[in-house]
Amino acid sequence: MTSDRPIILVTNDDGITAPGIAALVNAVKHLGEVVVVAPDSPQSGMGHAITISEPLRLDKVDIFKGIICYQTSGTPADCVKLAVSKVLHRKPDLVVSGINHGSNASINVIYSGTMSAAVEGAIEGIPSIGFSLLNYAHDADMEAAGKVAHKMAKMVLEKGLPEGVLLNVNIPYCDFENIKGYKVCRQARAKYNEEFDERKDPHGRNYFWLRGDFANFDHGDDTDVFALKNNFVSIVPTQFDLTAHHAIGTLNTWNF
Amino acid sequence: MTSDRPIILVTNDDGITAPGIAALVNAVKHLGEVVVVAPDSPQSGMGHAITISEPLRLDKVDIFKGIICYQTSGTPADCVKLAVSKVLHRKPDLVVSGINHGSNASINVIYSGTMSAAVEGAIEGIPSIGFSLLNYAHDADMEAAGKVAHKMAKMVLEKGLPEGVLLNVNIPYCDFENIKGYKVCRQARAKYNEEFDERKDPHGRNYFWLRGDFANFDHGDDTDVFALKNNFVSIVPTQFDLTAHHAIGTLNTWNF
Repeated sequence: MTSDRPIILVTNDDGITAPGIAALVNAVKHLGEVVVVAPDSPQSGMGHAITISEPLRLDKVDIFKGIICYQTSGTPADCVKLAVSKVLHRKPDLVVSGINHGSNASINVIYSGTMSAAVEGAIEGIPSIGFSLLNYAHDADMEAAGKVAHKMAKMVLEKGLPEGVLLNVNIPYCDFENIKGYKVCRQARAKYNEEFDERKDPHGRNYFWLRGDFANFDHGDDTDVFALKNNFVSIVPTQFDLTAHHAIGTLNTWNF
Repeated sequence: MTSDRPIILVTNDDGITAPGIAALVNAVKHLGEVVVVAPDSPQSGMGHAITISEPLRLDKVDIFKGIICYQTSGTPADCVKLAVSKVLHRKPDLVVSGINHGSNASINVIYSGTMSAAVEGAIEGIPSIGFSLLNYAHDADMEAAGKVAHKMAKMVLEKGLPEGVLLNVNIPYCDFENIKGYKVCRQARAKYNEEFDERKDPHGRNYFWLRGDFANFDHGDDTDVFALKNNFVSIVPTQFDLTAHHAIGTLNTWNF
């Protein structure tokens, strides 16, 4: 780290060998000094897990040509902590996480390892962005998403972000020319309707696979789901102050 | 489930054998039909992780006398999903999670498995409360915390909660007589300053233990940390809409 170019930390939750992180490295590598610290295996659905009951590994690897790169046994949030404390020995100027294979719009933000890395960056006071593409396939075309990530990372490096705010950027799956533009949105109110797929193991014991259907019950035209449905990139400013400030008044009328 | 008493789901993140969940079961068992679905092992720091890459086990166990009780191999959020879909076959009237051994005030809410179960309940539209005691010890005295949990659960059963809002209740560690009262609070702005404890395994390879010091940089007298320091129970109304609504205006001035 001898130059005065910005330091950009790249991480993800699909693991260091996922095509999405390669696309993200390519998207931001000319914007600064890129350092990759990412999980050594897939960590989807890890939410904001951190590893406190097991030791963590951190190993230098040579995956992206000319770029300092480490894999860890930890979660996406662990990656950001390890990068700051043990790799960079300083805060980077930007954290970018992704490009996730699959949507992190709406309620997915709660379950997302990709977004937890960006949240962890914001907790550290670092401008941070999570990127996700609306296609789960390993071999999804990342070209348009890479262009979006480049533009967004450049803007955030130039403008910064309000304190305590990170960005949740979701990208529709289409050719770049067919992306209609960018919309600043709120998180749509939605949930998963769970169905557990019940099976028997070879020993006769039951087990369950979690699966769910996304149910959007928010018909606003200012939501991320609406923007994406209309082929816009959705940008949700996201915070880690979970206080429901609007409910404080109501609760203060309770007679504790 | 033949009575018309409310159904109360009890879960936690310290695991089904932790003293905290026993205290919570005792605290709420006279308020309705209690059903326990909790992790079969400790899940602290799991944030809002869900299990999508591995199958889940769900086994009936006999731990709390006269109370239907299941342990799962999943996370706290999985427990709520499994309870609704596979145990109760309906939504309970209340989800209570805890009593956590250790604080979930301030930024801890982000990392907390205890709170993720309550968040999952709220996503399902169920009134939900997470309880945490400011003592990490396995043998901490849960008597005062149990009384607080009883009172809060009773109130929420009677009054309900605003849509999309759950409660993060933290309890100071002192005798019940020394608790000064209840304060509705906001989440204090704070973070952990990480330190990784670096060691070598018997094979000469490095590994790291994550540890951190809690750093509060919020001097407001309306925060959970302030309330707890002054021996009040802190009640933070908490939401899973992570949109930073106040930042939408700023971002709309950007020229995308």
